[in-house]
Amino acid sequence: MLGLKTPTRPGWIRAAAADPLRVLIDHAHCEKKAAASALSLISKYPARKDLVERMTELAQEELEHFARVVRLVHERGGDLGIDRADIYVNRLRDLVRKIEPHHLLDRLLVSALIEARSCERFQLLSEAAPDAELRDLYRELLASEAGHYSLFVDLARRFCGKDESETRLEELLVREAEIVSVLGDEALMHG
Amino acid sequence: MLGLKTPTRPGWIRAAAADPLRVLIDHAHCEKKAAASALSLISKYPARKDLVERMTELAQEELEHFARVVRLVHERGGDLGIDRADIYVNRLRDLVRKIEPHHLLDRLLVSALIEARSCERFQLLSEAAPDAELRDLYRELLASEAGHYSLFVDLARRFCGKDESETRLEELLVREAEIVSVLGDEALMHG
Repeated sequence: MLGLKTPTRPGWIRAAAADPLRVLIDHAHCEKKAAASALSLISKYPARKDLVERMTELAQEELEHFARVVRLVHERGGDLGIDRADIYVNRLRDLVRKIEPHHLLDRLLVSALIEARSCERFQLLSEAAPDAELRDLYRELLASEAGHYSLFVDLARRFCGKDESETRLEELLVREAEIVSVLGDEALMHG
Repeated sequence: MLGLKTPTRPGWIRAAAADPLRVLIDHAHCEKKAAASALSLISKYPARKDLVERMTELAQEELEHFARVVRLVHERGGDLGIDRADIYVNRLRDLVRKIEPHHLLDRLLVSALIEARSCERFQLLSEAAPDAELRDLYRELLASEAGHYSLFVDLARRFCGKDESETRLEELLVREAEIVSVLGDEALMHG
């Protein structure tokens, strides 16, 4: 899906389906961090008007999802708990080069990959989640994540060139598959 | 207004009315930072469900305002530019005590004061801004900031007790007046 080089293992799907509240809690934190990441891109590139406008819309959408997931967590008797380090995201972030224009390109493409993997996992959850409310949630969100993937890839192509973006995306897809292949099967969005 | 101990000087109003685009740009950054601050309270106190829900709504509202102000900045030929340190906010933050439950109380009350001062300045701008579009913007936003002030004071009372909240609010109002009295008259939201 969306160019990903390796599918999520069945062990993760079983773990996630067995502990839906834990997945929801982790998911809420992911939405919050996605909004914060969009705001951080705005602070880093404030003169790129198109980027600023797109990231503003994205942050708003991520916060809507956050609000929806928080409501579900609370309705189901949970609370957000501590926001634990996300090893998957941190390893991808380690691949972001420090020097421009590579920095912007890598930030956009790493964001695209996170959206792609979320999209794949929402697809799995939209079939495996134990109740209809959750299956509906994940079905709606997977379309949204696919849109965010396209947004980031389009911005990368526009700002950094089509060829360079595609070459680098291919490299990062290989690294993403390596990173995802060594994660444990925990009931976390990126577990 | 809202308990503030000293009014904004006329010199600030003149400076702000003379450079509305610079005020808008700084205002956009303030809205972004207000959203980030609400998200940061959620990360710090994830088990306080009521706080999490209120801060989620607040972050959404601040981002709506951010989007609206960014649109105006872009329409008027500006861009966001660098997000400069906000001396006023940083000096207020220095007053936040490190130890709980004082930390939560102070964070809520400092946020209340920032909202109160913004409300006062939006009131001034709703009369002094050079065109109707801006006067309308500030008129709408001042009601919203007054609501945010009440939200933070209510949360402080609920979580930290009415008497302690009122005593500390009074202390912080005095300090806020000292801080605002030594700012230069720059065309910035907290200039």
